[in-house]
Amino acid sequence: MNRIYNFSAGPSCLPLPVLERAGREIACYGQAGMSVMEMSHRGKDFIPIAEAAEAKLRCLLGIPQNYKVLFLQGGASMQFAAVPLNLLPETGSADYIDSGNFAHLAMEEAQRFGHVRCAASSREENYVKIPEITGLDKNAAYLHITGNNTIYGTRYIEWPESDCLVCDLSSSILSEPIDVSKFGLIYAGAQKNMAPAGLTVVIVREDLLGRARPGCPAMLDYAVQAKAGSMYNTPPCWAIYMLLLVLEWLEGLGGLAAMKKLNQAKAAVLYDAIDQSKVFSSKVEKRFRSLMNVPFMLEDDEQNKRFIKEAAANGMVQLAGHRSVGGMRASIYNAMPREGVEKLAEFMKDFERTL
Amino acid sequence: MNRIYNFSAGPSCLPLPVLERAGREIACYGQAGMSVMEMSHRGKDFIPIAEAAEAKLRCLLGIPQNYKVLFLQGGASMQFAAVPLNLLPETGSADYIDSGNFAHLAMEEAQRFGHVRCAASSREENYVKIPEITGLDKNAAYLHITGNNTIYGTRYIEWPESDCLVCDLSSSILSEPIDVSKFGLIYAGAQKNMAPAGLTVVIVREDLLGRARPGCPAMLDYAVQAKAGSMYNTPPCWAIYMLLLVLEWLEGLGGLAAMKKLNQAKAAVLYDAIDQSKVFSSKVEKRFRSLMNVPFMLEDDEQNKRFIKEAAANGMVQLAGHRSVGGMRASIYNAMPREGVEKLAEFMKDFERTL
Repeated sequence: MNRIYNFSAGPSCLPLPVLERAGREIACYGQAGMSVMEMSHRGKDFIPIAEAAEAKLRCLLGIPQNYKVLFLQGGASMQFAAVPLNLLPETGSADYIDSGNFAHLAMEEAQRFGHVRCAASSREENYVKIPEITGLDKNAAYLHITGNNTIYGTRYIEWPESDCLVCDLSSSILSEPIDVSKFGLIYAGAQKNMAPAGLTVVIVREDLLGRARPGCPAMLDYAVQAKAGSMYNTPPCWAIYMLLLVLEWLEGLGGLAAMKKLNQAKAAVLYDAIDQSKVFSSKVEKRFRSLMNVPFMLEDDEQNKRFIKEAAANGMVQLAGHRSVGGMRASIYNAMPREGVEKLAEFMKDFERTL
Repeated sequence: MNRIYNFSAGPSCLPLPVLERAGREIACYGQAGMSVMEMSHRGKDFIPIAEAAEAKLRCLLGIPQNYKVLFLQGGASMQFAAVPLNLLPETGSADYIDSGNFAHLAMEEAQRFGHVRCAASSREENYVKIPEITGLDKNAAYLHITGNNTIYGTRYIEWPESDCLVCDLSSSILSEPIDVSKFGLIYAGAQKNMAPAGLTVVIVREDLLGRARPGCPAMLDYAVQAKAGSMYNTPPCWAIYMLLLVLEWLEGLGGLAAMKKLNQAKAAVLYDAIDQSKVFSSKVEKRFRSLMNVPFMLEDDEQNKRFIKEAAANGMVQLAGHRSVGGMRASIYNAMPREGVEKLAEFMKDFERTL
């Protein structure tokens, strides 16, 4: 087995012990005599897996009792529609903060369903920071934010105040403790910090259930899914099982407070390498720097291309930045070992000497 | 490893060689240095997997060039909404055939979005047959059917004529050859005959693209997904990879014509056991008997319960019938080996002797 360091923005690396365990029990889970992939979702073998995944997620994130946890499908992009279909009254309005590409897409999708206001934006500055938020609409049904901006490498350093704060937390969930009670609804695609692609986690305050519009598909109605325990139809069982293994791994590391320390240390290695370099730079305003996604670049694009190519030859892949930013981006989610980040920082120093 | 025979209606058994191969390469796929679950969906390692899965599906099913293949999420239940949101004009109507529980749910969901007519139903006969179809509305935007009724164990023996026949083929796709050109749109959840839960395959004639309503979420718009090559956002990569392995396994068996023979032979073993028994019976009209789901029952419910319990003790599980039918149900999808069906038939004979 010849594993490499995978800095992909998502789907992204998973903890090796998790993969190894999944591999060992892939054809025969425990005493079940079958694979998790073959289990009836309503059967005696799978129900404990789904319940344990929810219980561990509740414990790790400190999810209050008055919140439901839903295991859904379709990724954050499906939630871009589900949120307004559930929470935006036909005659009401919602505030959106435009802090990056996915924040912008979420706002555009919501505009299909009613009145949506861009309450603040850093789009004109190519999203190098979280925009300053002033003048929120107190009558807005909700305020939508994107907690961590995967492409631009920024993150909120404090949560805006709102009675109904809705947050896409796809690229930073489980990377550090959060106070769930500050949010009305949190959603996250699993494929960065939780599990393989195909699972979407929604954490929703119970008073927000039951508001879906008549034209909301049953599958997207949070109240329907909550009532069915996320089993209105067959859920993505394998991804839920993988989530459980990842949560057990996180528990073993000491939970989210410990994970935060590890993530801060990893990010510091990389940001220090950038700040101490004469050739690598980052455009992000320092106070908004993400712990999960670190964009950086060299002076000209040929150098960037050579860096990405040579890094790959040295066992570090998926380092190309998003086309709207250019340069490089290292996504260093929970499962990226510190050794991978240190190897990248060393490689940056070596590369600088060749210029 | 102590594998048992799993007669679950879905998720259901997968071919053991497929599971074993997936297990071998779970942490390191080929030369990629990572798991398929960790691959960027747009990267050089995953794209060939997605392309091969589509190519093999096209080849096995004989999908004409003027049809798109989409790899989506949300199961058939999500398609219950997506179909009318794409194909039912606000002022138009659609015909639905009510041949079972999921057919009924599909019709109810469509009714949220416009005028839907129940063109034929066997609901009053507890779905023991496919209803006779007469008097279709020639102006209907489409005709919706459920090809195989998982709960009741019935299937269409000929396809009704329609310019736009829409078919939920979740529980029989890939079980035998079909003429795709007779359909406007076919959809199927993967968790019965294709892959683990979390993937939905849609096969749609190109002239049906681009008709979505303004209120259709982008993720549910077939034209959006077709244009993006099913990568409008991150697809369920692992399930697509598992589909590829299952398709390769099917190819190795000789394709769908060979699979049909195997399925007919397996079903015959079980139906013969029922027909030759003095105590087991089936309510389904014989000509509509499904090759995939075989409901059967004993005279009283205590006997049914004992049968299910003793079968489980003998390594045959998930044999309880759906609560709306009672008794037993053996789902014998492609991946159920003939040996499993023979063991069940033998067990039925042994059980009969104890009564």
